[in-house]
Amino acid sequence: MQPLRIGLIGTGFMGKAHALAWRNVHSVFGDSLGPVPGIALATLCDQPQDKAAQMAREFGFSRAVSDWCEITQDPAIDIVSITTPNGLHREIAIAALRAGKHVWCEKPMALTLEDAAEMRDAARASGRATMLGYNYTHNPAYAHARRLLADGAIGRPVQFRGWADEDYQADPDLPWTWRARLEDAGLGALGDIGCHLVSLAWGLLGPVESLRAEIQTLHETRPLPDGSGRGRVENEDTASALLRFANGVRGSMVISRAAWGRKSRLGFELHGTEGMILFDQERMNELRLYQNRGPLAEQGFKTILTGPAHPPYGRFCPAPGHQLGINDLKVIECAAFLRAVAGLEPCQPDFALGHAFERVIHAMAESGRADGRRITL
Amino acid sequence: MQPLRIGLIGTGFMGKAHALAWRNVHSVFGDSLGPVPGIALATLCDQPQDKAAQMAREFGFSRAVSDWCEITQDPAIDIVSITTPNGLHREIAIAALRAGKHVWCEKPMALTLEDAAEMRDAARASGRATMLGYNYTHNPAYAHARRLLADGAIGRPVQFRGWADEDYQADPDLPWTWRARLEDAGLGALGDIGCHLVSLAWGLLGPVESLRAEIQTLHETRPLPDGSGRGRVENEDTASALLRFANGVRGSMVISRAAWGRKSRLGFELHGTEGMILFDQERMNELRLYQNRGPLAEQGFKTILTGPAHPPYGRFCPAPGHQLGINDLKVIECAAFLRAVAGLEPCQPDFALGHAFERVIHAMAESGRADGRRITL
Amino acid sequence: MQPLRIGLIGTGFMGKAHALAWRNVHSVFGDSLGPVPGIALATLCDQPQDKAAQMAREFGFSRAVSDWCEITQDPAIDIVSITTPNGLHREIAIAALRAGKHVWCEKPMALTLEDAAEMRDAARASGRATMLGYNYTHNPAYAHARRLLADGAIGRPVQFRGWADEDYQADPDLPWTWRARLEDAGLGALGDIGCHLVSLAWGLLGPVESLRAEIQTLHETRPLPDGSGRGRVENEDTASALLRFANGVRGSMVISRAAWGRKSRLGFELHGTEGMILFDQERMNELRLYQNRGPLAEQGFKTILTGPAHPPYGRFCPAPGHQLGINDLKVIECAAFLRAVAGLEPCQPDFALGHAFERVIHAMAESGRADGRRITL
Amino acid sequence: MQPLRIGLIGTGFMGKAHALAWRNVHSVFGDSLGPVPGIALATLCDQPQDKAAQMAREFGFSRAVSDWCEITQDPAIDIVSITTPNGLHREIAIAALRAGKHVWCEKPMALTLEDAAEMRDAARASGRATMLGYNYTHNPAYAHARRLLADGAIGRPVQFRGWADEDYQADPDLPWTWRARLEDAGLGALGDIGCHLVSLAWGLLGPVESLRAEIQTLHETRPLPDGSGRGRVENEDTASALLRFANGVRGSMVISRAAWGRKSRLGFELHGTEGMILFDQERMNELRLYQNRGPLAEQGFKTILTGPAHPPYGRFCPAPGHQLGINDLKVIECAAFLRAVAGLEPCQPDFALGHAFERVIHAMAESGRADGRRITL
Repeated sequence: MQPLRIGLIGTGFMGKAHALAWRNVHSVFGDSLGPVPGIALATLCDQPQDKAAQMAREFGFSRAVSDWCEITQDPAIDIVSITTPNGLHREIAIAALRAGKHVWCEKPMALTLEDAAEMRDAARASGRATMLGYNYTHNPAYAHARRLLADGAIGRPVQFRGWADEDYQADPDLPWTWRARLEDAGLGALGDIGCHLVSLAWGLLGPVESLRAEIQTLHETRPLPDGSGRGRVENEDTASALLRFANGVRGSMVISRAAWGRKSRLGFELHGTEGMILFDQERMNELRLYQNRGPLAEQGFKTILTGPAHPPYGRFCPAPGHQLGINDLKVIECAAFLRAVAGLEPCQPDFALGHAFERVIHAMAESGRADGRRITL
Repeated sequence: MQPLRIGLIGTGFMGKAHALAWRNVHSVFGDSLGPVPGIALATLCDQPQDKAAQMAREFGFSRAVSDWCEITQDPAIDIVSITTPNGLHREIAIAALRAGKHVWCEKPMALTLEDAAEMRDAARASGRATMLGYNYTHNPAYAHARRLLADGAIGRPVQFRGWADEDYQADPDLPWTWRARLEDAGLGALGDIGCHLVSLAWGLLGPVESLRAEIQTLHETRPLPDGSGRGRVENEDTASALLRFANGVRGSMVISRAAWGRKSRLGFELHGTEGMILFDQERMNELRLYQNRGPLAEQGFKTILTGPAHPPYGRFCPAPGHQLGINDLKVIECAAFLRAVAGLEPCQPDFALGHAFERVIHAMAESGRADGRRITL
Repeated sequence: MQPLRIGLIGTGFMGKAHALAWRNVHSVFGDSLGPVPGIALATLCDQPQDKAAQMAREFGFSRAVSDWCEITQDPAIDIVSITTPNGLHREIAIAALRAGKHVWCEKPMALTLEDAAEMRDAARASGRATMLGYNYTHNPAYAHARRLLADGAIGRPVQFRGWADEDYQADPDLPWTWRARLEDAGLGALGDIGCHLVSLAWGLLGPVESLRAEIQTLHETRPLPDGSGRGRVENEDTASALLRFANGVRGSMVISRAAWGRKSRLGFELHGTEGMILFDQERMNELRLYQNRGPLAEQGFKTILTGPAHPPYGRFCPAPGHQLGINDLKVIECAAFLRAVAGLEPCQPDFALGHAFERVIHAMAESGRADGRRITL
Repeated sequence: MQPLRIGLIGTGFMGKAHALAWRNVHSVFGDSLGPVPGIALATLCDQPQDKAAQMAREFGFSRAVSDWCEITQDPAIDIVSITTPNGLHREIAIAALRAGKHVWCEKPMALTLEDAAEMRDAARASGRATMLGYNYTHNPAYAHARRLLADGAIGRPVQFRGWADEDYQADPDLPWTWRARLEDAGLGALGDIGCHLVSLAWGLLGPVESLRAEIQTLHETRPLPDGSGRGRVENEDTASALLRFANGVRGSMVISRAAWGRKSRLGFELHGTEGMILFDQERMNELRLYQNRGPLAEQGFKTILTGPAHPPYGRFCPAPGHQLGINDLKVIECAAFLRAVAGLEPCQPDFALGHAFERVIHAMAESGRADGRRITL
C-alpha cells in the first residue's frame, strides 16, 4: 500500500500533539491496526515560512508552507490535520473535504453552530473520513467506564454529574486577548473545555434532549495589552447546566475556565441503580467504581489503575499502573482515525457527531443568555 | 446559678446525639463557655414508657415519660430538645415555646413551609432561644473556611458548587416506608440532606435570591413491607439546582439519597478570584485550600488537617490531626445554644434562619415540579 | 448493682479523654455492655488543689484531691484511671493494685522496662483488671482489619509495614523541656507513638521475635527556656526497625516525632498472599483493601468507610460514613475495660500484654544504641 | 551535522520505549536540545529474523538483524540501545564500547557486581557517553523535588523513606520462569525495582555509606510450566533496609515484587528540618510538599500538579496538569543522553554511577543473606 501523505496545519499545543501522533501511531499499534497504509509526513503549514520550515524539520515533515491552501489543494496530500485557531476550522476543513482529503480537526469545530453545520454537510457530501479531536474519549480508563456501564456493572444509569474546570482565565489581571472576543474565539469556557465534557457524557448516555443553563463572565473587562485601557470579555468564564438526556437520565454540568487550582479537571460521576463510576482527567490513569455487591462491611469505592487489561493501554506499556499521558491519548485517537481512513470501521466523533456536541454547548450558551430558558435540542 | 433542666424528646440517632451533647458540653468546654448555668438531665420522652425508662437510665435522665406534653408543660423544664420524626416538630416546638422553654430542634424544621413559618413566628413571639440541628455548620473545618473567606484568602467569591449525597435510598429493592409519603415525611432528599447543604452555603454566601431546579424520583414505587404489592414514592430521590445568591455569586447544588457509595458526602467548592476552598464531610477533619500565591511551580491544593489552631477543636484534643467525629459537632452546637440560652450571644441557625433555609429547599421542590421554572425567594 | 466508683488522676489530654469516656460509656453502649454496674465519678486528682476542684466541677466528679494517695488508698474507690506524666505510672499503678483497685493506665507503661515488669507483676498478683490506653486498637476500622485477616480476605500475611509519625518535635527552635530527659520522660518517639504502632502490629501478627533498629536524635540540643544556653536532648526523635514476627512474617517500622506535616499518622500496610490491607489513623474512618479477586480489569484498592457494619460504630451513629473521632475510641476502650472489671471477658492490652509491647520498643532503643545489633525478644 | 545512527537491540517493553524515544526526541525538544545531530534509525536486532524485520518496520528502522554483533561491529552505527534480558547487558555493552559506540543500556546493569564493574571500566576506557535507563529520575516532578531540596524549601534533609512495590510476583500460583534463577536473572525485586529506588534516593542525598537489610523469598517454589513439579525461586521477593547516607541522613527502603495492588508504586518521603517532600510514581504528575511556613492554621501538604513551571514538561504540553506518561520520561532521558553524546554536558546516571547503584542493591542482598550484617560501601 502507498503510504498516506499527511498535511499538518498549525504547530501549537495541538499541532505538536498531531505531529507526535502521526509519528508514533504505527510504532505503538503495529499489527493491531489491521491492514492500514503507512504514513508519510508530507507537508507542514505555519506562518511565517521560516517558522514552518523549522517546525517541519523538528517534526520530520518533508516540506514546509505558509499558506494552508498549498495543503488542501495539493493532490499529493491524503489527510489534513487541522490545528489552527478555531476561527479557521470551517474554511480549511471544507476546502480539504471538497478536495477529497480525509480531515482530522481539533475541537471545537467552529465559532458558530452554522459553521459547524456546514462542516458536517461538507463531510457527508465528501464521503471522506472525519475526526474531531476529543482526545479524552480515547482514554482507556474512559473506555473501561463505558464497558462497565454496558456490562451492567452499576445497573441502570440514573444520574450524571460532570465538571470541566481549568484556571487559565482565573487571574483577574491577565491581559485581554482575542480569546475574549466572540468574533474571534466564539464561545469561552464552553468551547474550550465544555465540549470535552459533552463528549464524555454523550459516550455514556447518548443525546441530550433538553437543558437549562446559567453562564457568567466573571471578569467582565481585562487590561488591554497596549496599556490603552480595558477591553470587554465577550464570552463566558463559567457555565452550569441541568440536562435531560434522551434516555431519561438527568444530569448536571459545571464548567469554568476560572477555577483556581484546577489544571485539567474534567470528569464525571455516573450514578446507577447498582453502583457508581467516577472519573477525572487529572488522575487520568485511575477509574473509581462502587458496586452494591458482597457484604456491606466490605463495600467501598475501588480505585482501578489502568493497565493492559484496559485496551489499548498494553500497546504503550505491558506493565499496569505505569501511566499513560495526554499525548498518548492522541495516538489512540489517531489510530481510530487511521482505521476509518482505511475503511476498516467508522471513527467517532466524526463531523456529524461533533456537530451534535456543538449543538449542546451552543444550547447552553443560548439558555444562559435567556435567563435559563429551557432549550430543546 | 440554678442548672438548666433539660427535657429530651426522642431517643433515636439524633436523640442520642443530643443526650451525649448535653452530658458533655460542660466537660468539654469548661470555662470557655463563659458564665452559663449547669445542666440537669431532667426528663426524657419516648414511647412506649418502658423504652423511655430504659433510655432515661442509659442517658442519665432523672425521669421518663411517654407523652411529650409532660415535658413541654412541665414548669420544671427550661430547655426542650426535639428529636422526633419531622412531622411532630411544629406542634412540640410551638407548645414548648409558648410554655416559655428554649428549644433545640432537629432539622428539617417541619413538613411544610407553612409549618416552619408558624414555628419561626412562635419563636419570635416567645423571646426564647432557638436552635436548629445543622451540626455540620459547627465543624471547626467549616468555621475555618468561613474565616479564610472573610480574611480574603481566596479573594472575592465567584462561584459555589455544592453536593449532598448519601445512598440510604439507592437500593431499588428497599421496602416502602413512611419516608416515601409527603404527608408523613415532607420532602425527600431535600429535607434529609439538601437543607444541610443550604446551611453550609448560606454561612459562606448569605441568602439565595432565585433558583431553578430539577427533581426526580428514581424509584417510583417500592415493595410494601406486608407483601401486598408496591407503594408509591411521593417525594424526591434527587434534586439539582442552579442558584443565584443575593450577593451576585452563582452556584449549583446536586443532592441525592440514592448515590451508591456516598455515605455522608456533603461539601462544596468555593471559587474565588484568588483561590479555592474545598470541603467534604466524609473527610470532615480536612480542609483544602488553593491560593494564587508564591511561585507558580509551588502552587497546589493544600490539605489542612484541623487542630487546635481551628477552634474549638482544642477543647476536644490538644493534638492536631487526631480527628473529631460527628457527635463532637453536636457538642459544639450545644455549646453555642447554651450560650444563647444564657443570653451571652445569639446562636445560629435559629428558627428565623432555619425558616429561610426551608424556603430554599421548598423553592427547589417547587421549581422542580414546575419544569425548572425560576423561583425568586 | 452498686455503681463502680472512679478515681481519675490527671486532667490533661488523656485525663479529659478518660473523664469523657467514663461519662459516656453507658449512654453510648447501653444494654450491649451486658450486666455491668453503673459508674460514679467519685474523685479527681490534680495539682494544685484549686485546679483539681475546677476540673472536678467541669468533668462532674464529686470530690477533688491533690494527693493521688487519697485515691489509691480510698476504700470507696473501685477503679483508678491513671493519666499522669509517665514517670508516675509505676508508683501509682502498683499502689492502686495493691489496694485492690482495677487500673486503667495510659501508655507507655513506664519509663523503664524494669518498672513495666514490676507493674505487670503487681497486676498479676492483684487479680484485678488492668488496661493500657492503646486507644487506636479499638478503632472499628482496625477491628475490621483484624476480622478480614482472620477470615482470609488477604490470604496468609507475608509482610508488615508500619509507620508512626507526628511533628510535635520537628521544629529545631522549640525550647528544651523535660520530655528531652531520659530520667523524666524515658524513651522519646518510641514511648510516645512507637508503642502505639507496636500495639497495632501485635493485634494483627502477634509477638515479635527479633529485630534490628536505628535510632537518631535529629536535634541534639534545644534552647533552654530560661535563656541560659542549650540543653541536651537525651532521647530519640526517630526510630526505624526491621522486625521478625514469631509467626514468620517480616516487617518494618518507621517512627518519628519530627516528621513535618504528620499530625497523627499511624498506620500500616499488611501484605498477604491474596491481597493487602491499609490503614492510617489520619483517616481513621477509612480502611483500604485490595483483593486478587474477580476480573483483573476490575481490581483495585477499595476504600471502605466505617459504619454500623463495623461494630461498635453503630453504638455511636446508625448512619455509615458519618465519622467517629479520637475521643470515641476511648469510649470503646472504656467499654472493654468495664466488661473486664465486671468479669465478663478479659480486656486487651492488659499490663501483661502492655509489658510485652514495652519490650519491643526498648529492644528497638537498645538495638539502635548498639549500631543495629539484632535483639531477640 | 551527520545524523547519529542508532542500533537498537531488543524490542520488548523497553525496546519499544527506546524506539519511541528516538523517534520523538527531536520533535519534542526541538531547538532546546542545543546543537545536537539528527537521528537515523539504522538497525534493529531481535530474534528470530522475521520478528526483527517486522519490528523494524513498525518502529521505522532501516535494517533488521538477528545477531547483535551486526550492530556492535557495524562502523555505520554510532549509538547502541541495549534492551535485552539483563544477562546480555555486559557482553553487548562492552563490545559496543570497545567498538567506539555510545551506549544507552537498560537497568539493572548486569547480573553481578563484577559484571557491572567491567562495564564501568569499559565505559571509562572508551571515553564514550553511557546512560542507564533510570527513567524515573527524569520525571519533572522528581526534578522539581531536587530543586526544592537544593533551594532549602524543606531545610536540611534528615530522613529518607523509600518504597518500590509491584505485584507481578504476588500470585503464589504463577509458574516458575527464568526470572527465578540467579544465574539467569541475577537479583529479584532488588534488580527489577529496588535499583530504581536507589537511583531516586541518590539523586536527593548522594552516596549510601552503610546499610543493614532483610531479604525474603515469599514463594519459595513455583509450579514448573511443563507440569513436572515445582521449581525453586532463587532470588528475593522482598527486601527491606536501614541505610546511612554519607551525608549523615538515615533512611529506610522497602521493596517488594509481591505487594498485591501495587502496580508502579515507587516513591519516597524526604523529611527535612523545615518541611517534607513526598513523591510516588503511581501519581507521577503530582508532588506533595509541606512547609513550616505561614500561620499554623493554614499549614498542610500541598499537592503540586506538574506543568510548564516544571521543565521540561512544557516541551510535551503547554498546559499544566495535563499529564505526562511513562514513555514521555524515556524521551527526556533520551534527550539528556543525546546532549551527552554531542558533548554538551555529561548525563546521569552513566555507567560509573550505575555501578554505584548496583553496589547498593548487591549490598542489600549480601546483608540480607548474612542475617542483616552491616555492610559498608
